[in-house]
Formats: sequence, C-alpha cells, structure tokens
Amino acid sequence: MLGLMQDWPLLIPKVIDHAGLYHGNRKVISRSVEGPIVETTYSAIRRNALRVAKRLEKDGIRLGDRVGTVAWNTWRHLEAWYGITGLGAVYHTLNPRLFPEQIAWIANHAEDRMMMVDLTFVPLMEKLQDKLPLVERYVVLTDAANMPQTSLKNAVAYETWLDEVDDDFAWGSFDENTAAGMCYTSGTTGNPKGVVYSHRSNVIHSLTVNGPDMFGMASKDVIMPVVPMFHANGWSLAFTAPMAGTTMVMPGPKMDGASIYELLDTYKVTLSAAVPTVWLMLLQYLEQNGLKLPHLGKTVIGGSACPRAVTEKFRDVYGVEVLHAWGMTEMSPLGTICSLKPEVANLTGDAWLDIKETTGHPPFSVEMKIIDDEGTELARDGKAFGRLMVRGPAVAGAYFKGEGGNILDDNGFFDTGDVASIDPNGYMRIVDRSKDVIKSGGEWISSIDLENLAVGHPDVAEAAVIGIAHPKWDERPLLVVVPKPGRQPARDGVLAYMDGKIAKWWMPDDVVLVDEIPHTATGKIQKTALRDQFKAYRFPG
Amino acid sequence: MLGLMQDWPLLIPKVIDHAGLYHGNRKVISRSVEGPIVETTYSAIRRNALRVAKRLEKDGIRLGDRVGTVAWNTWRHLEAWYGITGLGAVYHTLNPRLFPEQIAWIANHAEDRMMMVDLTFVPLMEKLQDKLPLVERYVVLTDAANMPQTSLKNAVAYETWLDEVDDDFAWGSFDENTAAGMCYTSGTTGNPKGVVYSHRSNVIHSLTVNGPDMFGMASKDVIMPVVPMFHANGWSLAFTAPMAGTTMVMPGPKMDGASIYELLDTYKVTLSAAVPTVWLMLLQYLEQNGLKLPHLGKTVIGGSACPRAVTEKFRDVYGVEVLHAWGMTEMSPLGTICSLKPEVANLTGDAWLDIKETTGHPPFSVEMKIIDDEGTELARDGKAFGRLMVRGPAVAGAYFKGEGGNILDDNGFFDTGDVASIDPNGYMRIVDRSKDVIKSGGEWISSIDLENLAVGHPDVAEAAVIGIAHPKWDERPLLVVVPKPGRQPARDGVLAYMDGKIAKWWMPDDVVLVDEIPHTATGKIQKTALRDQFKAYRFPG
Repeated sequence: MLGLMQDWPLLIPKVIDHAGLYHGNRKVISRSVEGPIVETTYSAIRRNALRVAKRLEKDGIRLGDRVGTVAWNTWRHLEAWYGITGLGAVYHTLNPRLFPEQIAWIANHAEDRMMMVDLTFVPLMEKLQDKLPLVERYVVLTDAANMPQTSLKNAVAYETWLDEVDDDFAWGSFDENTAAGMCYTSGTTGNPKGVVYSHRSNVIHSLTVNGPDMFGMASKDVIMPVVPMFHANGWSLAFTAPMAGTTMVMPGPKMDGASIYELLDTYKVTLSAAVPTVWLMLLQYLEQNGLKLPHLGKTVIGGSACPRAVTEKFRDVYGVEVLHAWGMTEMSPLGTICSLKPEVANLTGDAWLDIKETTGHPPFSVEMKIIDDEGTELARDGKAFGRLMVRGPAVAGAYFKGEGGNILDDNGFFDTGDVASIDPNGYMRIVDRSKDVIKSGGEWISSIDLENLAVGHPDVAEAAVIGIAHPKWDERPLLVVVPKPGRQPARDGVLAYMDGKIAKWWMPDDVVLVDEIPHTATGKIQKTALRDQFKAYRFPG
Repeated sequence: MLGLMQDWPLLIPKVIDHAGLYHGNRKVISRSVEGPIVETTYSAIRRNALRVAKRLEKDGIRLGDRVGTVAWNTWRHLEAWYGITGLGAVYHTLNPRLFPEQIAWIANHAEDRMMMVDLTFVPLMEKLQDKLPLVERYVVLTDAANMPQTSLKNAVAYETWLDEVDDDFAWGSFDENTAAGMCYTSGTTGNPKGVVYSHRSNVIHSLTVNGPDMFGMASKDVIMPVVPMFHANGWSLAFTAPMAGTTMVMPGPKMDGASIYELLDTYKVTLSAAVPTVWLMLLQYLEQNGLKLPHLGKTVIGGSACPRAVTEKFRDVYGVEVLHAWGMTEMSPLGTICSLKPEVANLTGDAWLDIKETTGHPPFSVEMKIIDDEGTELARDGKAFGRLMVRGPAVAGAYFKGEGGNILDDNGFFDTGDVASIDPNGYMRIVDRSKDVIKSGGEWISSIDLENLAVGHPDVAEAAVIGIAHPKWDERPLLVVVPKPGRQPARDGVLAYMDGKIAKWWMPDDVVLVDEIPHTATGKIQKTALRDQFKAYRFPG
C-alpha cells in the first residue's frame, strides 16, 4: 500500500524559486573579481538563473550535459549553478588550484561542453584550451566593459551572453535522481574520480545540514561561505542558504585577513564556513589591528583540524563558537558537525576542548559505523577505533563512469578511508587514515597519535610515523623525526619522553632523524613517499 | 544522466534509529494515563518499537495493514507508531472526540485490523466493537497491574503483549512511498476522507518544518506537544523531535492549566505546540496563582487564531513568543508558521500584532498561490484574496479509496478550501472559507471580516454573515446578529457603525436579529445550517 501524497520531486530549481518568492528581498553581497562589492537579491538571482537556463538551451546545452565552472564565490557563480541545474544540465566545478594537467584530464573525463570562467582564470584556460577539444564555448564571468582580449573559443562576456534572452522560461521537468552537479576527488593514488550529485541528494543534504544543531541558519542570519564552491560541493551552502532565506556574503577572490574582516564587519556576518588557514590569517590580522568580531556568532571549520588554542581564542577573545565539521566530496560533503548536545553542553576547560576537538556528530540521514578488518562493528565507547563506514542519501554510491568499481560493502556502506572512534554520545574522532594506520599483531596503532605526541619533545620540529614490515608483528611503527635547528635528539631520549603517555605496545621500535619529511602540495605529510624512502629499512636486531 | 548517490529511502524507522544511536539518553517524559509521570529514553523507545514490530508480525500484521490507535500523547503511543511503521504497516489515529458512529465508520473504511487503545477509551471501544467486525484484537496501552476486566476481543495489556518477544528484529525493507500513517478529515459535508501519509512525506515534512525559522528544535530543547497525536498527524512532532534529538514531554490525558503548568515548570519545557484553548486555560491558571514561565521560549499555536491580546500577554507578561501556524490534515499538516523575517523583525505595536496575527510563511517544499474563480493567479500584495492552492511532497494527492475523485487542479495544486491573501514578504492571511465567501458581481466579500467588524458594535453578542441570492449581483451579504441580553440593535444603527470601516459595496444588504446562531461540536459557526435556515429569505425591496 502506497501513501497518497503528491509526487513532488526534490529539485534544485524549487530551492531558488522558494528563495525568490519568499525571501526575494534578502541580499547576496559579493566581492566581485573586478574589484567592487556588488549587491543583488535572491529574486534577481532567480530571474538571472532563468535567463542562464534559457541561454544555455540556445547554445545547445541539454539535459545531462556538463557545464564546467572555474570560478570564485560570487553571485554570478550562483546564478550559473541554478541556471545549469534548472535546465537539467550538470554544474561541474573545477578546482583551479590543481595542476593544469589534472584540470584538463578532469574536464575531458567529465566531457564538459561549456566552461564558465572567472577573469582570474582566463590565462589558465587559454593555456589549457588546446587540450580541451570537447569544450565548445567559454563564457567569461564578467560584463562587456571588463571583457579582456582572449583567444578562448567562442568567448563571450557573461552579461553580454545573458542579455540575448529574457527570463520567460520554465524550469526543466525531470526525475529528482537526475544528475545536478559533479566534483572530482583528487586521491593520492590513481586518477581523480568524479562524484555525481543528484537533485535529490543536494536537496536532502541541504535540509539535514541546516538543522538547529548543524548550521542552523535562519532568515535573519548572514552567512559568509569562504570555502570555495569548487571545494567539495561548496559545503552545499549554495542550496542551504536560499532554502533558509539567509543573506549571503561571498568573498570572491580575496581570502586574506583584511578582506575577510572588511566583509565580516561591514555586512554583520553572523556565521561563516572555512578551512583553518583562513581563520589563522584572520586572527593574525585582528591581533595586529586590535579588532573584534561583534557580529560573528559561530564559524564552521572543516578540511583539517582547528588547533585547540584557536578554538579557545575564538571563544575567549572574540566570543565566536568554533564548530568543527568533517566530510568528504563523496558525502555532499558534510558528515558531522561538532555542536554541543545537552550531555556535553556544560563541560569546561580541557573536557570542553576535548569534545570541541572531535569532528562532532552526524545529522539524521548520515549513518556511521566503525568496523575492524573482518567487517565486525566495533563499540561506540570512544576508545575502540576502526574503519569509518558511512551510508546515506547524499553519500556516493559509485564514481562517474564506474571508476574504482564497486565502492560499497555488502550493506551499502562507503569506506571513508578514515579510521575513527565514536563515543557513546555519537561524537566521532578521526584517529588516522586507514592506509597510514600501523597494524601490529592484529591490533591498530594510530600514526597520528604518535606524531602528535612526538612533536611535544623539545628537540623535535616535525614527526612522521610509518609502519615497517616485521616478521613477528606484521608491522611495527618507525618514528621519523626532523630535529629543531642545532638539536640532535637521541633515540632513547625521545622514546623515554613518550613512555607512559601511550600503551607500551604502541612504542615505536626505532627513531630515525632526517633533514626533511616529504609533503603534498597542500602541506600534508606525504606518507607514500616516506614509505618509499624507507622501503629498504629494517629494524635493528 | 542520473546522479550516482546511494539509494537510501526516506523511512521512519531510520528516524528512531538515529534518535536511539545519537540521542539515546535524551528523555521522553509522559504523564501516564494511569496517573504517574513516566520517564524513558529514545534508546529504550527504539528497543520497544522493535518489539512492537516483531509482536505485530507474530499477530499476523503485514506490510500495508492498518493498525488503529485511540490514545493520548504518551511514550507507548510513540512506540506504537514507530513499531507499526517499522514493519511497513500503517498507524491510523482515530479521534476519540468524534461521534461514536463516525469513529466506527472511519475504522471500517480504513479496514483497521487491530486497535491500540488507552485505558480512557476502553468503555468507548467496548460499546463500538460490535460495529467493527474487521478488528481482530484490542491491545490496551497499559501493563498487567492496570489491565481492566474487558469484553474487548482478544484483549491484552500492551506490556504483557510486548513481553512475549525480544527486540532482535530488523526493520522492514520497502519503498519510501509506502504508506506510513492515516488520518481522516471530518469535513462539514459528506463522509470523512482518509489522508494517507507515506514514509517519504513524513520524513521530508519533518525536516522542513524543523528549519530554524519554523519549529527550530535543537537537541538542547524540550518540546511539549500538547496537540494530540490523533489531531492532524500530531503536527508531525513524533518524527521531528527524535530527528532533532529533542527531549519530549507528553501530557497524556490531562490538558488543564494546572497539569500543563506542572509539566512546563518541572521539566523546563522550552517549546510547545497546542490549540489556543489550551493556552487560555493555562493563562487563567497562571494568573490565578501568580505564576511565571521562566523556561518556555516559544509556543506554536494552530487550529484556530490566537487572539491578539493573548499574543501580547504571552510576550509582555511571560516572555513567550507566540508563533501562529496554519495547516491541514491534508498537509501533514503544517503549511505556514509565523516567525519574523528580517523585513518585519523590528516592527512594534499594532504593526507587530498585524504580522503576528497572520498565519505566517511556508518553509521550502510548501508551494502556495492564490487564484480567482477563473484560475488566474492573484498578486502577492497583501490585498488581493482568492482561493488558496498548495502543492508539495507532503500535500495530499488523493484521498483513500479515491473518495472525492481528483482533488488536484491541472497544475497539481490542492484547493485548501480557504480564501487568503499573501503579502510581498510571503505572509499569508486567511480571509474566509471559500464556501462562505460572498460572491457579489464577480467580486468576493469576506464573511469573516464583516463578522469581526459587526461584533464590535456594543449591542452585538455574536454575528454571522451569509450570502443570499440576488437577481442582479448573484449574491449579497446578509448579517445575522444575536443581540446582547436586553438589547435590540436597529438595522440602520448596525450598518451606520460599519460604514466607513469597509468598502461601500461590502455593506450587508440587511440585518436580521436571531436568538441563537447554530454551532458545530467544536464551537464554530455552522454556516450550512444557517444558510438552510435562511434559504427562503429574500432581501426587502
């Protein structure tokens, strides 16, 4: 027996329709790539999105076609997303920070037919366009006055292109499982893999992550999404904000402390979302200039962990609540946010910091479990740790063109590649990446925990831990250390420092001093390169 | 091209799973029908819901079967709903306040196979059971110690019945469009009609109505749903609260001022939902006893309008924000909530009350429009009024067994039967019921506006306005007045009082004095009976 409710597909055009009708005067304020700050409204954005859809159709774009965007967070990028999805085409954000060859590989793999490009990236795309035979036209996100001379194929300024049509257009009609957006993950091994969001997944995800314990944005709030739209589906804020009628402040190309502060202060931003580096730059700027943040209430921080001292300073000096978040491109992208449930709401001091340092708990619609190597679910006791598996309507079920094969286990869970613990209140803590964890005698040792401990030693500048093959224990940890300038810490001294702070069997079997530890482009320790470097290493004795 | 996200159906069992795992210690506190206040948790409720599902299966209940409930708001009623839906069966709430013949008609039409009945309603069901040949068993929602002697077929105490099974059970696996619940509307004409909620509609509705501008319940909140679960899907709070991890305080059978106050105060309730009469009783109790409401932050009021003086008193004396809400059984049931958007957030005095008196604005997923008799959409200017049409994933598309035929227009909109205006910010105001509006020369006159105006006359106790056939204008308004004791207001005096306060052409063509105006069981003016009474009436001249 079926319910007798209306068949009303969950479609992104309905989101911008809602914003246009019920929050039509609410502003979207952007620092433009051209320089000036530009104000528009949800109502005007909706009308332009209708024109984008109509204009794309005129250019031959059809249901399912991919339209690439290489752009900062601005109102034009929003209009493009809504217009593309309103036609049933697919927005495909390209990350301009990748190597040019990667960008070309990804655009070709996705078979992008058009590109919408910010002024900043015109030179980049000019260099790449010979490698992009499938791209039929480049729309430069600017107006006629700012349009540069360019060799880009069929190049046109966005505003000129839009002016050829009016907004008398009806959104496409299609199934809610229709593809809406794409974003590639750049794994450390193999080719990038395309995650394909549907209208349904974006709408459900946006609804669930705006619950009062999650982003909790109301129509009276002002959100500044510093996290770029090309980073992990822009944390879905391009949908969540109009759904809630929240004013948006878009930073455009400038993420330095002064620029971010100017927007936060001028437009009374109440809520923001960014990676930690942005906040470190902002804090430095605030301190140097003796400034405060009277309007900002909370900030969601993801991408990597926010240092405890920063979380404390935000609270104590600026009155801002830091909310750690965790997610993945494959999760649309949010999995957890660290808001405080009643059980932990009244903690203070270190106990408070311990909770704030976790990645938090999932909203309804994100299922999580931790399992051991045999697939057995582990206890949610805050101690046991295992592979973190996730399931939900906004979690990837497969990659584009079947790359990577079947990525789900027998129960439909996706392996995040993270190793984590979950405490009885549902707070999840990332312990390690599963490929970096050390497997010793059937038990797991967290390389990250050992590294964090070792860098506390006064002579240690940086530390990395990798597993080295061991005849009896399968793997044992090797601690690789970069000493501070002029220091030469002894093996036994380092191990003595760690003694008593970890389980005996976690103790590294050896310590090796090196001048340098290899890093990725984004500054993370490159464990694969380190393992290569030490592949001939054997423990003494 | 389809998205590549996981196929994760929106099912109610996932809601209680989420609450059990991530908000497991959060309490559900109920005033039991037996008397004592009983505390349990989402975790324990989930385990019992698994047992309900397993036990129902043992009794032969299968996917799609209807299980009736005649019960107050308690933890056992919640367990029953989750258990029934977890099996893919359908909870069917029966309103014990209806006439017994109506209850029997509805249970038979729904083909309920089992009944879960509170102690309060055992005598009622004993009288009715001969008329309910399809009901195979009555489960009395109590324990062995409180189980009464009863003639109910296969009667068993809920706790005894549950004790026959453990909680080792896997929720059913089925499509998200599977029926989950039923509630009949008791229209003023024709037989009651069954609205059939799906898992999908309940989940989406619960997500959207808990947005920060709507209920906005967080895990730190404490909600008291005074509105009964048998009234319009219980305003969906049985799903919204566990989804958000909000503590629930259930009033059981006692809705008097003292009982409600005891729970509000003892359990520090932060948010509530009820019809106005409950709050009038509470206010009287507070005033008589000099009490305050230090914990309650806001209360959602629906079912009928909350008088302006009550809204003001709640704010000024008790610091409680009243949020008007509007909805229908056919809308799962919420359509709008009157929270304040930035455009109206700073209003004061009458302007503030004018907005607070509207029914508010819809969340994403509720589409509204107003149309004239030709189906043309009318302006959202706060002045034009027309038939209120709604569309959305939690709006009825048909009634059970096709009663009433096709209930949607060509664009898939459902006619609410209300006449309304919508202002530029999206605030909706109910002007009249469409069957009561007076159609004069192709224009509409609101009977409610005329009645509200007429009762302002010092000699008028009650007023009703109906349309009377008119050779030239099609219909013209007749004002029917019950004078205050000992008064005899003259026709011309009443009309003179109204003059200047309404458009000239709205002026009633005549005024008739009567001793009494007919009312429905719930106290509303029975316009059908009044029209019958005046069907021979002709305007003078």
